[in-house]
Amino acid sequence: MLGVCYYPEQWPTSLWREDARRMKALGLTYVRIGEFAWSRFEPEPGVYDFAWFDEIIQILGEAGLKVVIGTPTATPPKWLIDRHPEILPVDPETGRVRGFGSRRHYDFSSPVYRRESDRITLALAERYGHNPYVAGWQTDNEISCHDTTLSASPAAKAGFQAWCAARYGDIDALNTAWGNVFWSMEYRSFDEIELPVDAVTETNPAHRMAYRRYSSDQVVAFHDAQVKILRAHSPGKFVTHNFIPMNETGVDNHALAADLDFAAYDNYPLGRTDLLMAGDGAEVFRPYMRTGHPDFGTFFFDQTRGLAPGAFWIMEQQPGPVNWANHNPRPAPGMVRLWTLEAFAHGAGVVSYFRWRQAPFAQEQMHAGLLRPDSSQAAAWPEIEAVVRDLAALDLDQYPTARAKVALMVDVQAQWLGEIERQGRSYDYTHILLDHYRALRALSLDVDFVPPEGDVSGYALVVIPALATPSARTIANLKASSALVVFGPRSGAKTDDVTLPEGLPPGALRELLPIRVLSVETLRPDCPDAMIWNGKTYPSATWREEIELAGEAEVAARYADGGAAIVRAGKAIYVASLSDRAFLTDFLESLCAEAGVATQRLDAKVRVRRRGDLTFAFNYNEEPVPAPAPAGAVFVLGGALIGPRDAAVWKAPA
Amino acid sequence: MLGVCYYPEQWPTSLWREDARRMKALGLTYVRIGEFAWSRFEPEPGVYDFAWFDEIIQILGEAGLKVVIGTPTATPPKWLIDRHPEILPVDPETGRVRGFGSRRHYDFSSPVYRRESDRITLALAERYGHNPYVAGWQTDNEISCHDTTLSASPAAKAGFQAWCAARYGDIDALNTAWGNVFWSMEYRSFDEIELPVDAVTETNPAHRMAYRRYSSDQVVAFHDAQVKILRAHSPGKFVTHNFIPMNETGVDNHALAADLDFAAYDNYPLGRTDLLMAGDGAEVFRPYMRTGHPDFGTFFFDQTRGLAPGAFWIMEQQPGPVNWANHNPRPAPGMVRLWTLEAFAHGAGVVSYFRWRQAPFAQEQMHAGLLRPDSSQAAAWPEIEAVVRDLAALDLDQYPTARAKVALMVDVQAQWLGEIERQGRSYDYTHILLDHYRALRALSLDVDFVPPEGDVSGYALVVIPALATPSARTIANLKASSALVVFGPRSGAKTDDVTLPEGLPPGALRELLPIRVLSVETLRPDCPDAMIWNGKTYPSATWREEIELAGEAEVAARYADGGAAIVRAGKAIYVASLSDRAFLTDFLESLCAEAGVATQRLDAKVRVRRRGDLTFAFNYNEEPVPAPAPAGAVFVLGGALIGPRDAAVWKAPA
Amino acid sequence: MLGVCYYPEQWPTSLWREDARRMKALGLTYVRIGEFAWSRFEPEPGVYDFAWFDEIIQILGEAGLKVVIGTPTATPPKWLIDRHPEILPVDPETGRVRGFGSRRHYDFSSPVYRRESDRITLALAERYGHNPYVAGWQTDNEISCHDTTLSASPAAKAGFQAWCAARYGDIDALNTAWGNVFWSMEYRSFDEIELPVDAVTETNPAHRMAYRRYSSDQVVAFHDAQVKILRAHSPGKFVTHNFIPMNETGVDNHALAADLDFAAYDNYPLGRTDLLMAGDGAEVFRPYMRTGHPDFGTFFFDQTRGLAPGAFWIMEQQPGPVNWANHNPRPAPGMVRLWTLEAFAHGAGVVSYFRWRQAPFAQEQMHAGLLRPDSSQAAAWPEIEAVVRDLAALDLDQYPTARAKVALMVDVQAQWLGEIERQGRSYDYTHILLDHYRALRALSLDVDFVPPEGDVSGYALVVIPALATPSARTIANLKASSALVVFGPRSGAKTDDVTLPEGLPPGALRELLPIRVLSVETLRPDCPDAMIWNGKTYPSATWREEIELAGEAEVAARYADGGAAIVRAGKAIYVASLSDRAFLTDFLESLCAEAGVATQRLDAKVRVRRRGDLTFAFNYNEEPVPAPAPAGAVFVLGGALIGPRDAAVWKAPA
Repeated sequence: MLGVCYYPEQWPTSLWREDARRMKALGLTYVRIGEFAWSRFEPEPGVYDFAWFDEIIQILGEAGLKVVIGTPTATPPKWLIDRHPEILPVDPETGRVRGFGSRRHYDFSSPVYRRESDRITLALAERYGHNPYVAGWQTDNEISCHDTTLSASPAAKAGFQAWCAARYGDIDALNTAWGNVFWSMEYRSFDEIELPVDAVTETNPAHRMAYRRYSSDQVVAFHDAQVKILRAHSPGKFVTHNFIPMNETGVDNHALAADLDFAAYDNYPLGRTDLLMAGDGAEVFRPYMRTGHPDFGTFFFDQTRGLAPGAFWIMEQQPGPVNWANHNPRPAPGMVRLWTLEAFAHGAGVVSYFRWRQAPFAQEQMHAGLLRPDSSQAAAWPEIEAVVRDLAALDLDQYPTARAKVALMVDVQAQWLGEIERQGRSYDYTHILLDHYRALRALSLDVDFVPPEGDVSGYALVVIPALATPSARTIANLKASSALVVFGPRSGAKTDDVTLPEGLPPGALRELLPIRVLSVETLRPDCPDAMIWNGKTYPSATWREEIELAGEAEVAARYADGGAAIVRAGKAIYVASLSDRAFLTDFLESLCAEAGVATQRLDAKVRVRRRGDLTFAFNYNEEPVPAPAPAGAVFVLGGALIGPRDAAVWKAPA
Repeated sequence: MLGVCYYPEQWPTSLWREDARRMKALGLTYVRIGEFAWSRFEPEPGVYDFAWFDEIIQILGEAGLKVVIGTPTATPPKWLIDRHPEILPVDPETGRVRGFGSRRHYDFSSPVYRRESDRITLALAERYGHNPYVAGWQTDNEISCHDTTLSASPAAKAGFQAWCAARYGDIDALNTAWGNVFWSMEYRSFDEIELPVDAVTETNPAHRMAYRRYSSDQVVAFHDAQVKILRAHSPGKFVTHNFIPMNETGVDNHALAADLDFAAYDNYPLGRTDLLMAGDGAEVFRPYMRTGHPDFGTFFFDQTRGLAPGAFWIMEQQPGPVNWANHNPRPAPGMVRLWTLEAFAHGAGVVSYFRWRQAPFAQEQMHAGLLRPDSSQAAAWPEIEAVVRDLAALDLDQYPTARAKVALMVDVQAQWLGEIERQGRSYDYTHILLDHYRALRALSLDVDFVPPEGDVSGYALVVIPALATPSARTIANLKASSALVVFGPRSGAKTDDVTLPEGLPPGALRELLPIRVLSVETLRPDCPDAMIWNGKTYPSATWREEIELAGEAEVAARYADGGAAIVRAGKAIYVASLSDRAFLTDFLESLCAEAGVATQRLDAKVRVRRRGDLTFAFNYNEEPVPAPAPAGAVFVLGGALIGPRDAAVWKAPA
Repeated sequence: MLGVCYYPEQWPTSLWREDARRMKALGLTYVRIGEFAWSRFEPEPGVYDFAWFDEIIQILGEAGLKVVIGTPTATPPKWLIDRHPEILPVDPETGRVRGFGSRRHYDFSSPVYRRESDRITLALAERYGHNPYVAGWQTDNEISCHDTTLSASPAAKAGFQAWCAARYGDIDALNTAWGNVFWSMEYRSFDEIELPVDAVTETNPAHRMAYRRYSSDQVVAFHDAQVKILRAHSPGKFVTHNFIPMNETGVDNHALAADLDFAAYDNYPLGRTDLLMAGDGAEVFRPYMRTGHPDFGTFFFDQTRGLAPGAFWIMEQQPGPVNWANHNPRPAPGMVRLWTLEAFAHGAGVVSYFRWRQAPFAQEQMHAGLLRPDSSQAAAWPEIEAVVRDLAALDLDQYPTARAKVALMVDVQAQWLGEIERQGRSYDYTHILLDHYRALRALSLDVDFVPPEGDVSGYALVVIPALATPSARTIANLKASSALVVFGPRSGAKTDDVTLPEGLPPGALRELLPIRVLSVETLRPDCPDAMIWNGKTYPSATWREEIELAGEAEVAARYADGGAAIVRAGKAIYVASLSDRAFLTDFLESLCAEAGVATQRLDAKVRVRRRGDLTFAFNYNEEPVPAPAPAGAVFVLGGALIGPRDAAVWKAPA
């Protein structure tokens, strides 16, 4: 099903009824409204005005549309900030208060704002919790966007001290756990603890990790309070949240999504591609400039699907040029349809476009909508019409998403560790994760993302690019699994308090892999060393561990100097160095073969994805390509030759 | 005529009389003094000491020199700052107070400093307003240099709130005009308004534009107050100001210059070239390293000429290596003379060198003068002597500057819009304007700069690289003109409140051009698309608009995808995309031909300029070149072969 | 002799005795302890706990080891900061307080911290000053590391004002000396003086130089106070300090070391090479990635040797990968031994490894030690064993370091001047000094570093890359010397108050060289001009002076335009421009020939160094090379073919 984001408060009421009619006529089902409208819900302190909102819900509902209400907590109004300036966050890098004038100007640690957030959420939940036209709720908006998870406010400092007290009980335990004897960093009481900001040189990684976890916990607690209110006052309606790329939030997104019915993602392929490839030369970037890179969107679709049980939504789908990337091209013709179908192929339940009509004012006036500011149809309109026809042809409700054969473990602690303790400047957990994902996708594999303590049963192959601080539960899950499990370097690198584990890394992972990491070196990425696997030489760069066997294990690959580079014990494999995508593709292909998972090497701009009995294929090329379908495939959409920027869907031959 | 900048307070009085004698003997007419000397005019609060200044004026006057007094307001003394620290500006980027220790440490919004500025100006005007040796006044010095227009002080915030109240009358009007309903940015009263600084993410472009305009208005008001005092107390003397490159001030320079007799420019060709070409490789930069780029100086000469009615001055002319660029080469032999003659060719009335004698101390001790610190003649000295002879030969008073055939419209609002709403990171209004200028100059054209509401009558061609918010008066002027008018992309892009115009851009410009801009895309400059004009393919990059015809118009060029790229309706032409200088040269050449304006393609390092009946040609090459003169030309200076770094001046054959 | 850095407070007491036994068994002599342990020496304000320290000293001493105690002042404990937050320094760039959470969080100008530093030093000195196991003391740790010399605290401002008053006596003298009449920067009293921070644009170079000198003086005074206490309470024990690279401290290191018995250096060849070559491409960097560059370590060894009379120490020697460079490779096999022997070759008395056992917690958990965290031997262990054997074979006490034939003058004022008055962005004193050093080393020369007023008697060649503000004593020393003296450009550039000298540069140096510097130009390094010496053309770039002869002197080289580039008068030579290392090598080789100093051109990765009768050669290559030894050389270590990453030591044939 399709939806759209709508801001009735930005338009004359005279347009509302016609807008609703056109939405319905286009084939849309859902309309998200309300987020950002706090100054209209409560124009003066304590003075609510819901009449206009009652009216638009009525209009939309009567037109046959279902309403999703966003809580407006991303945009506290000026009067609230003026009454309680302590709501504002403080930038940990600069020490400056981050003020009013845009959005997200609030501190997750602020008790005042927590109370205010609950109050406005409750007011909305009480009024609309049982409204028949309301289908569900979106909490806040793109929580943690604009680097808002970390704050160095007095409230954050007080909260952090309390969090440390709760975790460690007494201050000596904290000093010991963090190793504060080093550099005389010992505290005598919890109220002596500083935030790890503004120090003369780097602070203790344990300190920084605690601050990261504390900050993530505040986001989750802030969010959970809204969910709880909505659950209590709007039973039977769904609650979701629209995520931005998971690596950009500084939050444990699995924890954040724990109480949601399903997760949603805001999908801007061109903006993301522009930013992710900003360092690439023109020849590398240009082929993706107006299509987006085929692995960047789905990388987040598959992560979003893994966050919560229900079929995920695309809450905001780019329909044309946006305004916030370095450069903002128009999508190539066909891409809005392609991106939409791709989301459904990866398991989306709903794709909702952002936004209905381009606003002629304020920060996003250069951001396209389905309509131009003058209400004429923008370029994406006919593509949405085509999607409506496609969806009718596909009848996707028949084809629920099945568990994949391959799981990719995503570990936010590994990301944080990589940021906190760089060791090698080019070590970047997100890119390492993405490289593994891209290698799997180039092999035509469906990929599920699982968190460290997630359920890994039923997978044939579990790929773990890095697992910073493996818990007992994680290890037990992996031991219980029948899958091949591949660990990348830096797995088991630390204890939960960010110290080296007893007996050297990989610490508790030795239950699976009897090895010891004797030392680590990091290399400039332009100065790789080498490793030899299966008779071929691959680069070994960026992060290289020196491994000692500490039990029954075989060496599957060696460095140029003869040291072990890949070690295997039973179904567990440890890759001690980072290499390149060519290696990952070859290596994972071989493991899939062993695990009985079929692979197929795809064209760089062709990707496939299965949903139930259907196989979707997407062609990002400017030329037609043959569908990578088996002989006798029955095409439900398209055919054996996939046009430029087009899709095909087939069933296996009967 | 020639002049020099002199700082008598920096030298023993014993040198003054001999200095005056040597200035006169060299052939100088004007001597600028006094700016920066506040601590000597008023060594203690309220205690004035003018005796030394009386004396030097007397000495200079008796030596036959004319004195220009600079008001010393760029350098308030320490005691004034200590008494009124609220004078200091606040950096909007960092929030830090910008303190004492250099110059320009004052906030244009400070009522205290406005009062103090008026007080010291009045004291000087009263004492010297009728002094027979005083020819005129310079206000302040390089106003807004060092990024001082914008300040985030409490005074600026209060002033901005009052400015908004004066402009919008009631707060709802402001909220509506800016679209503050977006993101709940609505204010309930003017005193709730913040400066657009320190927000979590980007602020409303309308908000930022208002802050820019407010800040520019404060500079103008500060300056106008000085002009008013000088006019009142020094009737018959000229008042001018020495501008730095107009794009660097954040000020509406036409408004600033409105009450001046003429404008002045501080010309440092090597420093400017070093900075403007800092991103260029050695092969591109090196040819200009010791000559400066031939289009960078005149770009500002021609703008300066357009600011005020009288013949402009070069108030400060580089005579040797300076101290403030990244690297500071020596001028190639002949260049000081060449630059001086070039200023006269472009209409200068006076060229004044900075400075008489190199100071052996403080910030500018590595900045050359006409004399070295030991009073010996520095390298430029014989070139000044040559200029004196050249001027005698030319007798320029006979040759007033005539209106050019081609006008280039410079729009400070377009510059500010480009900075506020980047949309594409590589969009840079100043470089776009400069590219148009360079194309015109490479065609040997004289160019006048006009502001948006300036007089365009009498031109054959009006080139408007971008016109952000066209006013009714601008449109009326253009409609009344018989010129061909070429608009670049982003013309008519916004209303005066920085919203998209009714009916889409170019809004009110549709009176001239019946088109609608349906969408905009921005591309990385290294990933251009293409457009075809006149059978040739040119790049279309950075900024590309999708155009729909909305009336009688012809499509003069198309994008590679067939869309309209250049549209023409009568004498109005709209170019919907940015291209390169090769395109601009070809295209403008063709329009000149149509408009009956003669063009001639010049060597990259040769430029010509007319003044009355005279044509000047300048050779920046290290080799001689033939003068681009018609057969039978009568040479007044030089001859048919122009030497390296030399000039020739001729009249057309009789 | 060898040593190690040990942190008993970080380990269970149960490990201490065994650690001591293993240290001794390995062949170590010295153990440094105590620095960073303030929170254990004084866990509560005024409550000392020395029992544990008594015990470990006893254990180490009884094991046959000698103890070096570090004063713990680099790490004031939290309770001290909380009681006296004014101890914290203020970052002059950002204005932010640099807080607790790492190390070096104190302001050298703080009277409170000076008192506290003296108090804890005294407590240690009183307790251990006569302890028989204590061999000596290390003051603080890596003083001024992490850019801590400069602070913009209120204490620094007050101190600076007093320092100015002491230097200039009355404020008019200061105003005149600095040229404060420029830009009305005049002060009326010393308490009006600001620190040269936060100004709108650049501040007076005299002001900045004074701030640099003041700040350096505070470091020295802070340090001298510790030395004085230690001398008074621990007679007969040595006092030293462990320096970081001398150019990184912002301190006059010769002044700092004035009262030390010997200086020590912390030697991290791979980290330094990673940072110093960060701008180099892979082909240039890669050969040194795991060996370090052969001239970067010794550049600092030779400087350290010149700081104080006794044989210098390496107080911290890298034994494996570190944690603080951009990338942190493992040393190539053999390099830990090679680096150690190289330090001895350059005159070291002791090399002490950092650290005994890798800590599993806190900031340096990824920094290798001699042992891994689990007490197993890390990679360097067998190389230390080999060094022990080497030292036994060499018996270095027989071979004291002799004065070299060539002196390189290192002038911290020239470095500061280059940073304060950039003039050309690519002018970098440290790289200029290093280039001269590298050229001399490539010629197989031993090099002594001398400060400007240092003793230059006995040298055959004195190389002075730049001498900013030559004193009468320096000039007298140079005149008295029989050496050839080569000055680089910018010598004699300024008076002591950072003004141009009377009669133009080189001012007082005209006693040696009758020339005048008429002007200076700076060029982009990629746009060099040329100079011709000895029939060959070399680049002349970055800094170029125009020279006039002012007496008896010959022109030894000319610029391409014919101007003098190298001038010579008797034994004094002035090189007026920067060139490249090829020029320096050719030119210095010719001067050595004249001065009777033997040279030999070496392979880029081979270096030699003499100690007494011994000649050491070090091969950084991955392949063997012939030892650059004379026929008949008697090898004490190694032989005529030096293996990869190996050394040879020989005596001349009898």
